[in-house]
Amino acid sequence: MQRHFDNELSNLKEMLLTMASHAAGAVTRAIRALTERDDALALQVKEQDSILDQFEVEIDEFAINLLALKSPHASDLRLITTAMRISHDLERVGDEATTISRRSLELSQEPQLKPYVDIPRMAEMGLSMLNDAISAFVSKDPAKARSVIPRDKDVDALNKQLHRELVSFVIENPTTITRALNLMVISKSLERIADHATNVAEEVVYLYEGRDIRHTKSAPEPQNS
Amino acid sequence: MQRHFDNELSNLKEMLLTMASHAAGAVTRAIRALTERDDALALQVKEQDSILDQFEVEIDEFAINLLALKSPHASDLRLITTAMRISHDLERVGDEATTISRRSLELSQEPQLKPYVDIPRMAEMGLSMLNDAISAFVSKDPAKARSVIPRDKDVDALNKQLHRELVSFVIENPTTITRALNLMVISKSLERIADHATNVAEEVVYLYEGRDIRHTKSAPEPQNS
Repeated sequence: MQRHFDNELSNLKEMLLTMASHAAGAVTRAIRALTERDDALALQVKEQDSILDQFEVEIDEFAINLLALKSPHASDLRLITTAMRISHDLERVGDEATTISRRSLELSQEPQLKPYVDIPRMAEMGLSMLNDAISAFVSKDPAKARSVIPRDKDVDALNKQLHRELVSFVIENPTTITRALNLMVISKSLERIADHATNVAEEVVYLYEGRDIRHTKSAPEPQNS
Repeated sequence: MQRHFDNELSNLKEMLLTMASHAAGAVTRAIRALTERDDALALQVKEQDSILDQFEVEIDEFAINLLALKSPHASDLRLITTAMRISHDLERVGDEATTISRRSLELSQEPQLKPYVDIPRMAEMGLSMLNDAISAFVSKDPAKARSVIPRDKDVDALNKQLHRELVSFVIENPTTITRALNLMVISKSLERIADHATNVAEEVVYLYEGRDIRHTKSAPEPQNS
């Protein structure tokens, strides 16, 4: 019975890993669509968002069935509820990739406002955080998960810097406003992806250390302002 | 045993109702802080966000204990996981109230850019959606929950209209950019509150009709772009 259950927990982890790799791929392609002004790629990212939506529904159903049918022990139960939360964060990473693609489609209709340096860098930082958080989940490594959390503030700082720069563009030349706003939204999306990676990391710490560090002093403040 | 469990499910619903009333109160006060330029009130909303964070942690712990110790039947199990998801949405409504308060504090340092008409209206619409979704949860009324979902697009439309209006302000007079951006963020926060109400409504439909309508054609598209 327990061996059978271990198999099902492995399946759940496997589903989550596949989902994470889809989510990261969506963000990478959305940023490439932006920098290469590739509308076909941007449209593809938008269309494929339904794959991540489907993953979330399937993981939820799989997890709820495990909870209902198997009466798991406390630690397995926590793993299952954590998997559900992580899949929710991954689905929202996919939503951010869709947002980036939509804004890229608008941006490609006008000349490029400035070279994109900070944006690909923010994407790289957020995806590396997400990758480490997921790998900490799979390898049961709360220390690795903890190391993800402070990196969030570097992405926040880049977002703020880019925001200030774009404001000064608009003040100098108000006709840049549409492009500047689109880039602000993309930058904010990337900052949110790092927030989701931080959420996942906090979930993993909670799962393996049994302490809820969400909403504590050591965790970052909500950054949706 | 089942009667004892029914008591605990009632407690869980009660906690969620109290949390929902706190979340709605935070949004109402944040909007009042904006329209009355009341910095003390804005600061109070920011400080009290930790109450909602604490509710989320407590509801999660309570729910996981029910799952672990009571081996609930399938329908109770679904109620418990739904309660966890709803509390997550309510916590994020609180985050939006904090965002609105932060931006109100910045806005009160400059003269008011325009009369606030659409913003209080969006807040009212979003809170009424949230109220109906939560009351549908408590009264086991999936039809009422369904009726919440289409109202989301009215809030989206107001957000877009206000966005366009603010862009035209900045084009006419670039020195208005800081105020316009702060108002755009507040408008977006209100639009997100309506999204959270829609999420809750979809959860309630799923709970009582057993069909997952998230990510389907009848459900609204993600509006985070």
